[in-house]
Amino acid sequence: MLKSKIIATGAYIPTEIIPNENFLNHTFYDADQKLIRQPNQEIIRKFKNITGISERRYAEKSIKSSDMASIAAKEAIMIAGIDPETIDQIIVAHNYGDIDSFGGTREMVPSLASKVKHNLGIKNTKCIPYDLIFGCPGWLQGVIHADLAIRANEANTCLIIGVDTLSRILDPADRDSMIFSDGAGACILQKNEDDNSGILITAARSHSIEELDYISSGGGNCGTNNDTRFIKMKGRKVYEYALTYVPQAMKECFDASGENIENLKMVFIHQANEKMDEAITSRFFELYGINELPANVLPMNISTMGNSSVATIPTLLHQVLKGEIEGYSLEKGDLVLFASVGAGMNINAACYRV
Amino acid sequence: MLKSKIIATGAYIPTEIIPNENFLNHTFYDADQKLIRQPNQEIIRKFKNITGISERRYAEKSIKSSDMASIAAKEAIMIAGIDPETIDQIIVAHNYGDIDSFGGTREMVPSLASKVKHNLGIKNTKCIPYDLIFGCPGWLQGVIHADLAIRANEANTCLIIGVDTLSRILDPADRDSMIFSDGAGACILQKNEDDNSGILITAARSHSIEELDYISSGGGNCGTNNDTRFIKMKGRKVYEYALTYVPQAMKECFDASGENIENLKMVFIHQANEKMDEAITSRFFELYGINELPANVLPMNISTMGNSSVATIPTLLHQVLKGEIEGYSLEKGDLVLFASVGAGMNINAACYRV
Repeated sequence: MLKSKIIATGAYIPTEIIPNENFLNHTFYDADQKLIRQPNQEIIRKFKNITGISERRYAEKSIKSSDMASIAAKEAIMIAGIDPETIDQIIVAHNYGDIDSFGGTREMVPSLASKVKHNLGIKNTKCIPYDLIFGCPGWLQGVIHADLAIRANEANTCLIIGVDTLSRILDPADRDSMIFSDGAGACILQKNEDDNSGILITAARSHSIEELDYISSGGGNCGTNNDTRFIKMKGRKVYEYALTYVPQAMKECFDASGENIENLKMVFIHQANEKMDEAITSRFFELYGINELPANVLPMNISTMGNSSVATIPTLLHQVLKGEIEGYSLEKGDLVLFASVGAGMNINAACYRV
Repeated sequence: MLKSKIIATGAYIPTEIIPNENFLNHTFYDADQKLIRQPNQEIIRKFKNITGISERRYAEKSIKSSDMASIAAKEAIMIAGIDPETIDQIIVAHNYGDIDSFGGTREMVPSLASKVKHNLGIKNTKCIPYDLIFGCPGWLQGVIHADLAIRANEANTCLIIGVDTLSRILDPADRDSMIFSDGAGACILQKNEDDNSGILITAARSHSIEELDYISSGGGNCGTNNDTRFIKMKGRKVYEYALTYVPQAMKECFDASGENIENLKMVFIHQANEKMDEAITSRFFELYGINELPANVLPMNISTMGNSSVATIPTLLHQVLKGEIEGYSLEKGDLVLFASVGAGMNINAACYRV
């Protein structure tokens, strides 16, 4: 049966390494604009224990999201060995557009996908670029879109990129800002009629009643008159939401593949928070009566990469494919599950055979 | 053959009417930051001759894009008589997100589609909301996406909305600002296996080499130190581009439908500029050897609505269906063509049987 297959990946990992110690001089306030009196050393220690993050990457001043997206795309195209002119669709998932400096305007006219097409020098007028906004699960949703287009014979080759420059929309007075980072990840998805590799099944879910503002935009915690708007997260709500709904959505997707849980080799989960990701994945396996998280099932890069929103999964996949995540390697025929959760709130999952 | 059909439309037309005279006190500069010495009366007279715009609508202060989108959606749902819980996808096409005041932050976390889902009170977790960024052709591109999902049996009912609040990103020193306006238009696209109504064929084209910056974001023309970024258009380039490529794309789409040009009843073209729209449509008919634009083929609302970007086509379609555009009415079986052009540069078209 016709499937779509990831034939290559690429990533742009920003060069500016920001260790946790960089936050030692911040003055933190809570969401009610009350000064947090705990020493920063203690705040950072707890933060590290929960999120697993030791350092994160920020984009250099001279580089913005469409630039990072283009570099990641070029790497994927090079590895795939395809002519860029054969790409039918360029899908760029992001949440904040191009921002050229801290607190700067969020630009997406023209779309980031058009800018990527421009940067790749693609002249093919039938190569259609568009941006997709779906919270952190945007890259995987782009893959779901492209998979549909390929299975419906409306495309052969799609480039899907996840990118954000969160460092430019972070409230320095908010502890949650330590979570986020910048980056871009890309993949080339191509029609495959030759073997049984590719996307087996996908699923998406959305909760927007009470959940709408669990991740949103808002003013700074320290309550000055600054109009700058930052990413804001109700951490506890997000955690409870994710634990309640993500394992179930993953199971529904995996079950629909008809595969046996024993054969699941790896779970590529959105790098949101180490403890949360482990809890989600543990609960997913528990739904199959497996009460201990299997060894080497959950590759993670959050300790050094932070949470780069839409970029986390493709970046992690790229690193695993390049052999950069110790203890994790993929071989032809391996079964993996992708899963993501983020603003909306939105969830998605895809079951994939390498 | 399974097709997707527009079963209802809706629109939000803002209540603030802004006549051309409101620009009499503006001080206009050109793109090179040179003061334009021509009297404003003369500038406005020429503007009116070319664009056909006498007045435009701006959203009231208290309303933003996701609000307008929700109102348009509610009208479409009411007319369709469907249960909102049966909607499978909500696609919101826009270019600037939610902006709550002039020059304010462009917000799309959570996505506008998630906000619309929230405002509609939809609890169905399989109803997937996402935003699509594709320049002015975004609404029609959303219809193209939804049509694919429906034909591929991945959705039955989709809500597609085009919305922007351009009044909040307009440079008061730029004559082009007189073109733009605010608004929202929506449609419900549903699976149709009963008759031959629906989308027959669609097409899209993208040019992003030299054309990338024909419509973009930039600083104000009067050259102050203000950091605010506005919509910027190279008018002459856009005009030449549109005249060169849009008629051809329309013809390729129409020809692929296998229909006879004699049977084409109406062309719903993005309301960008009256003279340009007439020239595009005339050239399209000339490609079939028809050297005079047929009567009552080109409904327009730009004279009173201005150019509301992604909202123009669904708003115009809604007005025609409600009998509000004199001399234009649609009956079952009528053949129409949708066509759009905008930032990217992107073009799309769809051939549709009512």
